[in-house]
Amino acid sequence: MLQNIRVVLVNTSHPGNIGGAARAMKNMGLSRLVLVEPRVFPHHEADARASGATDILENAQVVANLEEALVGCTLVFGTSARDRRIPWPLLDPRESGVKVVEEAGQGAEIALVFGREDSGLTNDELQRCHFHVHIPSDPAFSSLNLATAVQVLAYEVRMSWLAAEGRPSKVEKDEVASPRSDELATMDELERFYEHLQQTLVAIDFLDPEKPRHLMARLRRLYGRSSVSRAEMNILRGILTETQKAARGELQKRKDQ
Amino acid sequence: MLQNIRVVLVNTSHPGNIGGAARAMKNMGLSRLVLVEPRVFPHHEADARASGATDILENAQVVANLEEALVGCTLVFGTSARDRRIPWPLLDPRESGVKVVEEAGQGAEIALVFGREDSGLTNDELQRCHFHVHIPSDPAFSSLNLATAVQVLAYEVRMSWLAAEGRPSKVEKDEVASPRSDELATMDELERFYEHLQQTLVAIDFLDPEKPRHLMARLRRLYGRSSVSRAEMNILRGILTETQKAARGELQKRKDQ
Repeated sequence: MLQNIRVVLVNTSHPGNIGGAARAMKNMGLSRLVLVEPRVFPHHEADARASGATDILENAQVVANLEEALVGCTLVFGTSARDRRIPWPLLDPRESGVKVVEEAGQGAEIALVFGREDSGLTNDELQRCHFHVHIPSDPAFSSLNLATAVQVLAYEVRMSWLAAEGRPSKVEKDEVASPRSDELATMDELERFYEHLQQTLVAIDFLDPEKPRHLMARLRRLYGRSSVSRAEMNILRGILTETQKAARGELQKRKDQ
Repeated sequence: MLQNIRVVLVNTSHPGNIGGAARAMKNMGLSRLVLVEPRVFPHHEADARASGATDILENAQVVANLEEALVGCTLVFGTSARDRRIPWPLLDPRESGVKVVEEAGQGAEIALVFGREDSGLTNDELQRCHFHVHIPSDPAFSSLNLATAVQVLAYEVRMSWLAAEGRPSKVEKDEVASPRSDELATMDELERFYEHLQQTLVAIDFLDPEKPRHLMARLRRLYGRSSVSRAEMNILRGILTETQKAARGELQKRKDQ
């Protein structure tokens, strides 16, 4: 179940932090590391700080952007330092650990995403996450070292996993309300849907690309928390395709004929 | 209350770890650092890894042995890799955080003691502790970096302190997973939305009233479980209105003009 969980580090500057994160992961039983455009990797400092977790570094996947890192994921947690203009589902590390283990146990593919050392994740990146995780820190000195942030989240995942393993006959989650994880749309399918949605909203003059007014963020928030199934996604995509035809005047032409 | 808690590092080899521990402490609101015979201190690597927590390093107390570090303490927690020959009260980090805050709130002077990077605390040192703390790690790779171990314990102290203070562990209370109930669309607003949606789907030829194929039921299921807020509903209704205009060919006519 822990193998369903990947740790994604975005644009890490210091290779030592990559090594430190790998060590923290391995200490807590996690193994899948994805690096989005690290400044330098591999690097001897990463090896040194990994302190034996070299297998995680060797198997780390290096990708060009966050989208690629999230391919196949159904649930994404992004660490966030501060309050954002747009409210987003926000969890503390403990709540995240519980949710990660619950969902991974049902087969979900999960990503824990960590941003840059100096500036965290961008708003655009945060909007690709279903949940934001805030590690409760002193507001006067709130920025954690990257590897220790990974440690805190991995620790909470492990605590929750250990508790879950101690109770193997855990009641199954009510599957009436939401689709099963194996039926959920993946992150990349969701991204393609958002792209399609955006194009369509521009086509019907609802979205002004010059003045987007957080519209896409709001819609991402709505669909992001809805656990959209693949079947539902197909319906939504179908609606968008027909709407685009309408916007091009094709329907009217057809009716005029 | 947090000022009643001191972090004690015994015979630390790498000054970078002292800096990392100081940063983790300050992130979590702890301030008192005691160093028992560090190999080198002060050191530029400690300053670098402290990343702004230099006040903690400057005020750190350097002492010759553990006894001296514990002067004035009434309750001592020692971190320990799992099994020891001598059975001892053993806590996990969460239980420790709760106990630390309980006792510190009653005026106890508390020490959290961390051992050497390679060999931890000696049995003699562990016997000076009231409780042993074990950070649950993968038995196959169990040794945590010193600074991340400090981070985990300091994090649990902070979580417990926030709970005791009645403070939220998250940035803002209202940043919850779903809209607040008073912001949710009502059932009748939802019904009007479904009606509007159905009319629109017919208008763009996506829904054939003669062969509805459970389409509306599927869409009701999706939006019904999403806790749609009134603001989101307004956006969705706005999209439908523009789509209807497009279906009537109004957009095309506007563009043709």
